[in-house]
Amino acid sequence: MIILGIDPGLAIVGWGVLDYDKNRFRPLAYGSINTPAGMETARRLALIHRDLTAIIDRYKPTEMAVEELFFTKNITTGIRVAEARGVILMTGQEKGLTLAEYTPMQVKQAVVGYGAADKRQVISMVTRILSLPAPPKPDDTADALAIAICHAHCAGSGRRLLEYCR
Amino acid sequence: MIILGIDPGLAIVGWGVLDYDKNRFRPLAYGSINTPAGMETARRLALIHRDLTAIIDRYKPTEMAVEELFFTKNITTGIRVAEARGVILMTGQEKGLTLAEYTPMQVKQAVVGYGAADKRQVISMVTRILSLPAPPKPDDTADALAIAICHAHCAGSGRRLLEYCR
Repeated sequence: MIILGIDPGLAIVGWGVLDYDKNRFRPLAYGSINTPAGMETARRLALIHRDLTAIIDRYKPTEMAVEELFFTKNITTGIRVAEARGVILMTGQEKGLTLAEYTPMQVKQAVVGYGAADKRQVISMVTRILSLPAPPKPDDTADALAIAICHAHCAGSGRRLLEYCR
Repeated sequence: MIILGIDPGLAIVGWGVLDYDKNRFRPLAYGSINTPAGMETARRLALIHRDLTAIIDRYKPTEMAVEELFFTKNITTGIRVAEARGVILMTGQEKGLTLAEYTPMQVKQAVVGYGAADKRQVISMVTRILSLPAPPKPDDTADALAIAICHAHCAGSGRRLLEYCR
């Protein structure tokens, strides 16, 4: 199963592609789509659509896991992230991927073992689980890989019973 | 100038295409893209992308005017609308349209003459300005036509000086 994990955003979209087979992970590629702050929103969204389409065409994932949005602090930023997230979900659907969404708490539970883990712990565990030579940069990329790991756990055979997958 | 006005939403996207020439309006087509409530969000977004692309290909607008989002009441609904709006902006950009955004207040000012006008007044003025045989249904379609009228006023030659266009 080839999984594309996505940490949505307008300025930075973290992404990571994992091959998950027989309980083993093989990272195929990971990185981030960055859009310039000075660029109009619609152009930035079109850039995300174009680059994400290219990533899907190249690595041919069958599943896409995307982090769910929670608006806590800045509502204007929240709107922009939601606009980018809409483009991301639409792109995955357009390319025929199976889509899944996870909350930040589910992702932390899956990767670190408890839902209140901090960012540093997530990055450290992602690096270890995937045997990466160094922590992925930026943090959004590490988050995207964490989301892909979470989906592997929840979508993998017999794993649907895990409590945090519900 | 052929203008596509859009009232964004996930369940209903209102749209209207106007030809604006020498201070005269000619409505070319108007309607709404409706997505089923029971359908997954990503599928609904892909439906909006597909139908909006078909509308642009058919009526060949050069400008797209979209209502700006304000989150006042329901934040969950707001996230869904923002996701749809992202897909809409991206689609317009992808098709090479000139994009403009207007607040509800600007639109009311342009169509009725004051920013605090109610929905009924907007619908009534849109019907009159465009000499339509009946008020457009649903209200989202009337709103989309109002946004297109607002953009015509603001983008039309010499009209940039109107106070509500700033």
